[in-house]
Amino acid sequence: MNNFTYQCPTKVIFGKNSIKEIKNEIPKNAKVLAIFGGGSVKTNGVYEQVTQALEGFFVREFWGVEPNPRLETCQKALNLIKEHEIDFLLSVGGGSVLDATKFIAAAAKFDGEIWDIVGLRAKFSDAMPLGCVMTLPATGSEMNCASVISNGALKIKKSFKNPLVYPRFSIIDPQTTFSLPLRQLRNGIVDTFVHVLEQYATQDLSTDVQDGFCLSVLKAVIQNAKALESEPQNYDVRANLCWAATCALNGWASLGCVQDWSSHAIGHELSAAYGIDHGLSLAVVTTRLLRYNIKFKSTKLAKMGRELFALNGDEMSVAMACTHKIEELFASTGIATSLAELGLDKFEVAEQISNRFKERNLVAGEHANIDYKAVRQILLEC
Amino acid sequence: MNNFTYQCPTKVIFGKNSIKEIKNEIPKNAKVLAIFGGGSVKTNGVYEQVTQALEGFFVREFWGVEPNPRLETCQKALNLIKEHEIDFLLSVGGGSVLDATKFIAAAAKFDGEIWDIVGLRAKFSDAMPLGCVMTLPATGSEMNCASVISNGALKIKKSFKNPLVYPRFSIIDPQTTFSLPLRQLRNGIVDTFVHVLEQYATQDLSTDVQDGFCLSVLKAVIQNAKALESEPQNYDVRANLCWAATCALNGWASLGCVQDWSSHAIGHELSAAYGIDHGLSLAVVTTRLLRYNIKFKSTKLAKMGRELFALNGDEMSVAMACTHKIEELFASTGIATSLAELGLDKFEVAEQISNRFKERNLVAGEHANIDYKAVRQILLEC
Repeated sequence: MNNFTYQCPTKVIFGKNSIKEIKNEIPKNAKVLAIFGGGSVKTNGVYEQVTQALEGFFVREFWGVEPNPRLETCQKALNLIKEHEIDFLLSVGGGSVLDATKFIAAAAKFDGEIWDIVGLRAKFSDAMPLGCVMTLPATGSEMNCASVISNGALKIKKSFKNPLVYPRFSIIDPQTTFSLPLRQLRNGIVDTFVHVLEQYATQDLSTDVQDGFCLSVLKAVIQNAKALESEPQNYDVRANLCWAATCALNGWASLGCVQDWSSHAIGHELSAAYGIDHGLSLAVVTTRLLRYNIKFKSTKLAKMGRELFALNGDEMSVAMACTHKIEELFASTGIATSLAELGLDKFEVAEQISNRFKERNLVAGEHANIDYKAVRQILLEC
Repeated sequence: MNNFTYQCPTKVIFGKNSIKEIKNEIPKNAKVLAIFGGGSVKTNGVYEQVTQALEGFFVREFWGVEPNPRLETCQKALNLIKEHEIDFLLSVGGGSVLDATKFIAAAAKFDGEIWDIVGLRAKFSDAMPLGCVMTLPATGSEMNCASVISNGALKIKKSFKNPLVYPRFSIIDPQTTFSLPLRQLRNGIVDTFVHVLEQYATQDLSTDVQDGFCLSVLKAVIQNAKALESEPQNYDVRANLCWAATCALNGWASLGCVQDWSSHAIGHELSAAYGIDHGLSLAVVTTRLLRYNIKFKSTKLAKMGRELFALNGDEMSVAMACTHKIEELFASTGIATSLAELGLDKFEVAEQISNRFKERNLVAGEHANIDYKAVRQILLEC
């Protein structure tokens, strides 16, 4: 087991009718900017609950954070913050809204060129306080300090991480998911699953508790993804999917482990170049990447194959079979799992994404072996 | 799944040679009271590492916190704090030292009768900041805000919980366990196991991630307890036991679940009345209590029996068999699992402990059915 340091200051408030707790978590005299996505919260009751909870506070609203949130959108929110001397940010929506809010929190206190915040090129030492109402089980952003932002002009999607942007509180009411389109939930299920895989399917460092935790989250996702189709009105199914999504990316899964975010690295480029949903990009890339790197990943994938899918055989064959089981699982949610299903030509995509890796000297993977050549090979299998 | 709120501000610093990090975690001008147990840290290198890390700080030392730490001992530390205007507490040792430190942190800022702090009779609103170097995998105190204190005069052992006594940081270097007597490690293994059971073996509330996490911790404990005997010099075995102990009681296992601390309630009385080690008291009581309450616990215990011990059959028979497997497991560590093995007469013990429950109107259990009569019946089986 590797050495590790862990600290997460976020207060998680989870459960039915928890949105009203906002009022106890935001400082009384705060000037709040509430940040929203496209407007679905106006039809599902979330906006109403948030507005009621914020009665008595100074509040301004910012609308229009898009999926794969953009630098240009965040810039507009920064203007509002200056204009109204805002001192607290409240994200209301899914991971995109929260990621944008984290970026805005950092950018509002940043003196230099704000795009430098992402890609970890600039360290920042201050950020506005923020809280969140998370309405989509997927991103895990509600209990970590990471964010992914897209630059529309440069067509680049990049991440940053800084303890200063941990949400002060994150409110997760699984009831808010009842109105979500099934497509979004399925994307979220894949997202959750791959978050765990990028932490689990790496070198075996005898991290027994963490590995068990990873497999528990994956098992819960598999069971509840199935139950979601047969019992869409079951609250506990929603609650399990929500908590699994949070646990998949709150750090608990990978303490003392090696991580490998290659699927995300390639997926981010696919999203930036073709506007593909984050979950979809992962569903297409992940299993092909695992097979490309199977020699590094066979021990953990074999353990997973035996424990989750009751597979038998030698390590390598169980590991390979496990990647196919994962593929089946993704396909069973009904989402696209190949570039062709997304209406894309794999030769064209492989060429373009490979070039993006080459031009920017990008290399990913726990063994730093996912370079532009590897990316081309992997995408030709997608 | 029940609603829950979770927040743990403790910074966990885990791994080899991590004790030196103390110096970066304690405020530079702090006046530190380092609190120790019986002196074993002087022979295993821990005291030396702590002293080196504290070079340049104002430090006073307090020695002599005993297992089942006493109010009377804590009182002495309070005098030192006043005398030297101490403003930061550093616990160095196992769970007893840390529990004492938490109590001292609260008592130092408390105006009333300090024994009122335990048993949750008095709410307190301030506490001194504290940090910890944890040297024994058992208690879980390093990542929670609970503490158990004994009153020597009253022969009572009671707990309190308050977010103000979360350690600011907890340093866990599994290497510190290499010098521990096997007896202490085995007690710690039972303690860890029962901590999880008291959270897991309760009403089934469809908490899939949490249940999986519980079973993962238990599985890791079983595997590494075995490995400890065959590979006592293996660092990863120690690291897994340490991390399992922390995870068993940091709250992650029981979010949204019902808990049932009956074994601890009876065990605390056994420790208070007969001076029995905490782990031993649990090894004696737990399985008998589970069987007494089997009708409430069969669903979860059957799940555990199937997943951890590969048991087959109907729910009730698998649940009962599971309690026997747990008993075998405790016995396999070589520790006493009956009152007779501890040299105690079960009739005398059942009478005395039952009377303690009766006199103080104590009732325990998720269904509040563990009263003095139940306690007598359970102890007659021990």
